[in-house]
Amino acid sequence: LFEIWLEGDHYKWRAMRANGIPERFCTGDASPREKFLAWASTAPRLVRNPLYHWTHLELKRYFGIDTLLDAASAPAIWDRANEQLSEERLSVSGILRMHGVKALCTTDDPVSDLADHRRIAEADAGPGVFPTFRPDKAIFVSEPVPWNAWVERLEQSAQTSISTLDDFLGALRLRHDRFHAAGCRLSDHGLDRCYAEECTESEAASIFAKARRGVAAGPGEGGQFTSYMMQFFGRLDAEKNWTKQLHLGAMRNNSSRMSERLGPDTGFDAIGISPQAAMLARYLDALDRDGVLPKTIVYNANPAENYPIATVLGCFQGDYPGRMQLGSGWWFLDQKQGMEWQIDALSHLGLLSRFVGMVTDSRSFMSFPRHEYFRRVLCNAIGRDVEARELPNDNSLLEPLIRGVCYGNARDLLGLKVS
Amino acid sequence: LFEIWLEGDHYKWRAMRANGIPERFCTGDASPREKFLAWASTAPRLVRNPLYHWTHLELKRYFGIDTLLDAASAPAIWDRANEQLSEERLSVSGILRMHGVKALCTTDDPVSDLADHRRIAEADAGPGVFPTFRPDKAIFVSEPVPWNAWVERLEQSAQTSISTLDDFLGALRLRHDRFHAAGCRLSDHGLDRCYAEECTESEAASIFAKARRGVAAGPGEGGQFTSYMMQFFGRLDAEKNWTKQLHLGAMRNNSSRMSERLGPDTGFDAIGISPQAAMLARYLDALDRDGVLPKTIVYNANPAENYPIATVLGCFQGDYPGRMQLGSGWWFLDQKQGMEWQIDALSHLGLLSRFVGMVTDSRSFMSFPRHEYFRRVLCNAIGRDVEARELPNDNSLLEPLIRGVCYGNARDLLGLKVS
Amino acid sequence: LFEIWLEGDHYKWRAMRANGIPERFCTGDASPREKFLAWASTAPRLVRNPLYHWTHLELKRYFGIDTLLDAASAPAIWDRANEQLSEERLSVSGILRMHGVKALCTTDDPVSDLADHRRIAEADAGPGVFPTFRPDKAIFVSEPVPWNAWVERLEQSAQTSISTLDDFLGALRLRHDRFHAAGCRLSDHGLDRCYAEECTESEAASIFAKARRGVAAGPGEGGQFTSYMMQFFGRLDAEKNWTKQLHLGAMRNNSSRMSERLGPDTGFDAIGISPQAAMLARYLDALDRDGVLPKTIVYNANPAENYPIATVLGCFQGDYPGRMQLGSGWWFLDQKQGMEWQIDALSHLGLLSRFVGMVTDSRSFMSFPRHEYFRRVLCNAIGRDVEARELPNDNSLLEPLIRGVCYGNARDLLGLKVS
Repeated sequence: LFEIWLEGDHYKWRAMRANGIPERFCTGDASPREKFLAWASTAPRLVRNPLYHWTHLELKRYFGIDTLLDAASAPAIWDRANEQLSEERLSVSGILRMHGVKALCTTDDPVSDLADHRRIAEADAGPGVFPTFRPDKAIFVSEPVPWNAWVERLEQSAQTSISTLDDFLGALRLRHDRFHAAGCRLSDHGLDRCYAEECTESEAASIFAKARRGVAAGPGEGGQFTSYMMQFFGRLDAEKNWTKQLHLGAMRNNSSRMSERLGPDTGFDAIGISPQAAMLARYLDALDRDGVLPKTIVYNANPAENYPIATVLGCFQGDYPGRMQLGSGWWFLDQKQGMEWQIDALSHLGLLSRFVGMVTDSRSFMSFPRHEYFRRVLCNAIGRDVEARELPNDNSLLEPLIRGVCYGNARDLLGLKVS
Repeated sequence: LFEIWLEGDHYKWRAMRANGIPERFCTGDASPREKFLAWASTAPRLVRNPLYHWTHLELKRYFGIDTLLDAASAPAIWDRANEQLSEERLSVSGILRMHGVKALCTTDDPVSDLADHRRIAEADAGPGVFPTFRPDKAIFVSEPVPWNAWVERLEQSAQTSISTLDDFLGALRLRHDRFHAAGCRLSDHGLDRCYAEECTESEAASIFAKARRGVAAGPGEGGQFTSYMMQFFGRLDAEKNWTKQLHLGAMRNNSSRMSERLGPDTGFDAIGISPQAAMLARYLDALDRDGVLPKTIVYNANPAENYPIATVLGCFQGDYPGRMQLGSGWWFLDQKQGMEWQIDALSHLGLLSRFVGMVTDSRSFMSFPRHEYFRRVLCNAIGRDVEARELPNDNSLLEPLIRGVCYGNARDLLGLKVS
Repeated sequence: LFEIWLEGDHYKWRAMRANGIPERFCTGDASPREKFLAWASTAPRLVRNPLYHWTHLELKRYFGIDTLLDAASAPAIWDRANEQLSEERLSVSGILRMHGVKALCTTDDPVSDLADHRRIAEADAGPGVFPTFRPDKAIFVSEPVPWNAWVERLEQSAQTSISTLDDFLGALRLRHDRFHAAGCRLSDHGLDRCYAEECTESEAASIFAKARRGVAAGPGEGGQFTSYMMQFFGRLDAEKNWTKQLHLGAMRNNSSRMSERLGPDTGFDAIGISPQAAMLARYLDALDRDGVLPKTIVYNANPAENYPIATVLGCFQGDYPGRMQLGSGWWFLDQKQGMEWQIDALSHLGLLSRFVGMVTDSRSFMSFPRHEYFRRVLCNAIGRDVEARELPNDNSLLEPLIRGVCYGNARDLLGLKVS
């Protein structure tokens, strides 16, 4: 239960720290059972936090446990859940079956050899498992040491040597091709902000050459190079009719003390406040001008930007339904209030009926009930409007909407091979 | 039905594009009936979008049609509505009568000869139709070619020649006088942001002279000149006790491809994110210091700024009730959620009871039911509070508030001649 | 009734100005009774404004008056309330008893001699009354005349002479010690924004020396010096295990005309929009790196920043429960909607159960019912979730939460001496 439920879950660590639980029980050397008990003692303190809902929904759906988790109930729950974890029903393939998963996308570095994906595809035993192309490491020319190490991994992965910007783009394109062959239809970018600075090819080539020689790009140059690469990545996705995902606006590693000690993704990130909408508009416009704007999903971390971003996306619609998507509540917004805000912003400023629905970027096989959670929030919004007589009580109108948001729209838009 | 309902309605075009309808059926060469059918096929996709409410409210109020609009019902609705459109009841004056319109304000360029307004006033057959003074074109000294062309139109309109800044201000003042004589009591400004930079008279005169010679003002100078002119316009309005309207924060023409093809106001605008409140405070303060702050209504495009702007307006109240107004939900906020936010911000930070109520800047004679929509949202907010026992169930308290917001406050504050 | 209820209450003045009441009846030379009648005539105009609730809650709780306040009811209410004000029940100690006050914190300049606090402590007749250390005047090196005057008062108060930065810090530390001896366990800072610029000790010493010679610090230097001092103040609080309060984001004195006439805190302030979260993260991180991060409560003026700031605070939790606190709705947010937003942000992003609850920074002994108001809003949120079956209807879970937020958490975290 510790491994599948607690290990690596920085949402839970944040809650435990806020409850005064020593770090030893979060990321330290306490035993799995001790960590579970520390978590359980925090549970009653989570009232109104989404973790309270998720925790109990997961206990119920996976283990049939109805008891509220707390220090007293913890030992029995620990035993009862661990007993069941050896059952076939709770194996990875059992969990995928249990939730009716049709396709599952992982997040992958372009240098990944995709061996696991090949192995899974060959076994052909369950839903399709597809890579997602996430080239975040390609852009950090301001830190040439790790960047060059990564470029060397790219050389190996693409079996080519990379001296010039052209070589670099060619190698990335080759990996993009390989990902496509492995069923990939989505890219993903985690960015502090959107990049849309002017950058000519020769400027990009010169920044690239400098970084390749180990000289860090200046701050302006870093932004220019990222902007250039983001245009390139947009073009790649458009050519193959992929869907590009942008995760915008996280402000990471705020506690330098803890981040140095524990590394990234350990619970020290926050919602950033640099306004995204104007730069996003410029980014999308530059692709749109050249006719290479791919389908795009924008996940926005700052709720105050839901409305501006939704309206920016509305400026680039066309050609097919739901081309530009305001992504579902993400990270700190992946909870009831955040979901409602996203659903409301999309409803009032765009077409909820064309929404591809919930994405959870969780790394846990225990997090599938969050899709149920999302679907309840969605149905709640629709049901409330019907009860308030703000929508007609007409299933022929509303059922297709619900079905589309919960499954059909993602199937139609993303074009993943579905079993 | 196409002309009165669809032509030029970029709200509808945006929804159709998001639904994947080809541009041909939005702004292209499809026939009116084809465009209507394309719109009708989009209608069931609009669930939770304000267009869904407006569409059916308009079908009901103008044509008595209760059927939900979709591809199947479209042909009969097309016929039934078009039949009725020739009835006197649905002529312009019929529509104004139907909605009990007491006064109607158009938006006009200062160079307009107001001939239509004169003609209507002479006919004296319905509600007063008054111009609104909107001098947006007076400020663009950074684009001297169209600006000078406009200054020449101003010369003709004011029957004077304009070489110096003084000439320019004199001509504008003369047009302001003429508008006043035509019953105008409101000005309006569409600005990406509020302008309150320092600019002396001699700086303004020099920027003016340069632009008049065809030399574009630099970016700093453009902001300075706009700031200078906005002080001047504030002063004009204060002298005649007009009400100034500021429409702040739109970010326009985001798709350069489509904007070049279709021009402005075709559905490619978004909510801007440049923070307005601080500059607004400086603008109002500069007028207030000199005792020339007119009555002001601020329409804000970004919901995240409702609270800051409402508190800025609260710093400049006084002299008569409701002098500074947080304008009703505007553009993307002209819908249920946006109206509720505006009503809530105003309620919590100011006096809802002094609110001048709904403005729709729609260009369509079919959009009057949006006032009904607003009044329902308003009454809903009050009724909900009464049911929650957060307000006393006391009509002697609540009825004057509702009546004031829906009509009396606008009548009293704006001072338009009402039939 | 005027003195205890209206004098100095700029919330009420703002409402009266928005209602067109002449300044004479707000801050001018009208008689107390005239001012009360002007206020009463505004009351029915306050529907949906928090003042409407507070006004009637205060009339009810202090005077047993159920009548709605308006021009007609005002004379009788004036008489009835004034009669009761001479009763022992409505003396200061009576009011404290009536509300079960256990400890009360004032706001004090570090140069204060705390004579009143000593006198109250010696009388030992009621709840503890403790100072709060608010060194806002220590940082204004950009206005050397008032700043030096204040440094001279600090010299007298600390009975030392201050020529160097070291002298200055030593004197402040001594006053901090004296405040501690008087029971102080909280500091407070009112800042337009968070300061976290780089500033070495020698830079700070040089800016200090310059200002001490009467030379104003430049804008960059002012920010640097404030940043340096804020690190110092953080360290002081951490050493003594105090709780630091940050009131961030007010934009003050927006009407220069009225602010010059009436001085600060007269109703001409607004919600600022400079984004706080990033600088706050840097400020807290600098303290955290050095292991001198005190317990901290952040009061945020801009609702659009609730979410970002709540997530920043979540990056610095640990060691004991509820160390970093998102403060309750403050100033313009000290009302139902603002409280709900704060409660929701904290609930979704942190631990509501560890919240220290409501603070009112009101200067009025009539404002205690705002705590009741807050508790109702809190219970309403919990009760609504229970009714919606989003929380278990389990008092053993919910009662400790309510009790903690309403009293226990503040008692435990702040460590004030409680009678």
